[in-house]
Amino acid sequence: MTNNNFDSKAFRTALGTFTTGVTIITATAQDGTPVGITANSFNSVSLDPPLVLWSLAKNANSLPVFTESKFWNVHVLSVEQEALSGRFASRGEDKFAGLELDEGLTTAPLLPNCTARFQCRTAFMHDGGDHIIFIGEVLGFDQSAHPPLVFQSGQYALAALKPREEVRLTRSEPPPECSYTEDLLGYLLGRAHFQLVNRLQVLLNEQGLDQPQFFILSVLCIRDGLTLDDINEYIAYTGSAVDLADMELLIKGGHVVIEQGRYRLTADGREASLHQIAQAKAVEQDVVEALGLGDAMALKLLLKRVIGSTDPGLPDLWSVPA
Amino acid sequence: MTNNNFDSKAFRTALGTFTTGVTIITATAQDGTPVGITANSFNSVSLDPPLVLWSLAKNANSLPVFTESKFWNVHVLSVEQEALSGRFASRGEDKFAGLELDEGLTTAPLLPNCTARFQCRTAFMHDGGDHIIFIGEVLGFDQSAHPPLVFQSGQYALAALKPREEVRLTRSEPPPECSYTEDLLGYLLGRAHFQLVNRLQVLLNEQGLDQPQFFILSVLCIRDGLTLDDINEYIAYTGSAVDLADMELLIKGGHVVIEQGRYRLTADGREASLHQIAQAKAVEQDVVEALGLGDAMALKLLLKRVIGSTDPGLPDLWSVPA
Repeated sequence: MTNNNFDSKAFRTALGTFTTGVTIITATAQDGTPVGITANSFNSVSLDPPLVLWSLAKNANSLPVFTESKFWNVHVLSVEQEALSGRFASRGEDKFAGLELDEGLTTAPLLPNCTARFQCRTAFMHDGGDHIIFIGEVLGFDQSAHPPLVFQSGQYALAALKPREEVRLTRSEPPPECSYTEDLLGYLLGRAHFQLVNRLQVLLNEQGLDQPQFFILSVLCIRDGLTLDDINEYIAYTGSAVDLADMELLIKGGHVVIEQGRYRLTADGREASLHQIAQAKAVEQDVVEALGLGDAMALKLLLKRVIGSTDPGLPDLWSVPA
Repeated sequence: MTNNNFDSKAFRTALGTFTTGVTIITATAQDGTPVGITANSFNSVSLDPPLVLWSLAKNANSLPVFTESKFWNVHVLSVEQEALSGRFASRGEDKFAGLELDEGLTTAPLLPNCTARFQCRTAFMHDGGDHIIFIGEVLGFDQSAHPPLVFQSGQYALAALKPREEVRLTRSEPPPECSYTEDLLGYLLGRAHFQLVNRLQVLLNEQGLDQPQFFILSVLCIRDGLTLDDINEYIAYTGSAVDLADMELLIKGGHVVIEQGRYRLTADGREASLHQIAQAKAVEQDVVEALGLGDAMALKLLLKRVIGSTDPGLPDLWSVPA
């Protein structure tokens, strides 16, 4: 299993399995030009004195600025700053164009909206092969609530935090003869979905509507003036279909009208649908609060990937009609 | 926003927002005693020559061994090695008890089943405040398919990788007047769930069963001999209830028998349910292949947290009956 031949690509790939955050490190040249580069070689070193380190390739354009400048700032990027990471990872000329800067303790540029920032003064520089290792004394730092961006195996990522206690839904092991476990993805997806729907169901009960009617109103709220066939095409992903009786009930309830075979929401129907959206968003907000923003974003990302990988080829409900 | 007073706890918290992997670093004392510690201060330094670094507290018990030993191994831990991380993070005496070791290039202990390993010889040691920075020349390395363990803000985590292309379900923007978006958690959970269920539905159609009947068989497969009330309690999370007519159909189909008001699976009923489980597992396997094992584990973790945070207090289906 051990590789003695230094295949540089394989070495880089193996190193890439070590997960990191993403930072942008900035300094100002003696002529006042701001420089900045994306780096994931950052790490903490010492609490007392407060020291951090990172390393920079000897062939980097910005090396002379960093070796000559006493001061540099480390910005731990948030998940919203992926584009900024890309900008500072490129060799582009004017990386700071259009960026507003915060006031810092030193001459080094201080970028806003980061997860955390460390304003440093060079303490030591060490030779590190094809890189220079910069060790900085931290003069000041701050932190925000923005969830941090993650980098693993050459890809950006979000972290799904593991609570300190193992997440188990039950208090005991399942019977040994049982081939079902609470770890089955279909069960987990189903139960999470049903529990979220149950909170929406309270509102639907008040509105005197059932789930198929909810689907119809949702589709008509996104795009009005559909035939029954259109509606069924858009809700095909639910595995159920609606029929004229469902539509008739919505017409009787004053939610929908039919004109030349096409259904439209009434003002009441639109209001009912908007209430449902508001309720769905309130339920989501509770989940975001329970999980944390970063984890909620990770969940949505993963669900989109599940949907993409299992999509039977459904019509594009969200696209603007041609 | 800048904190000049070195509140050591706040500094540590801010540093913790920089995500890392988790490593165990091992060496062997001159008397042959193996030592090892958990560290997240690892990082790559140089490709040519191949160098990596990590830092160790000056007050660590193992410091003399690492400063005297020429050789040490860095093990990038996998998500399955969280317990090992905990073991080597403690001050326990016999951290290597019961561990099988692989044959390495040097005297340093080489742990199996890691995401990646780097076998190193000390190239430089530098003073780093309350830590010593070890820079090692990499003599050999290897990598496995085990997804790596992540550490962020004091918690273990799994990475949810972002594909290089943004994950969008649709090819176009929704109409601007629409308050629904494809980013709504309830929609994403519902659609992912429905699409998975649709593949199970193919089998159910062949078996002549509907979803309520599927729920009944599943519950009876996990725990047999339930009353109708028991069954409804266990499937309450689905938001629907079953009745005597559903049970009667299952009895007529030869899947279920009733004895003194309690329902039991027949051999045919159990076989039908086991087929359903096998199908659900096959669907899950496809999702795992599409997402990757680490991302699939992250998804399950997050779904369990959603379920836990929205659980209305359901009975424990999986527990062994008292």
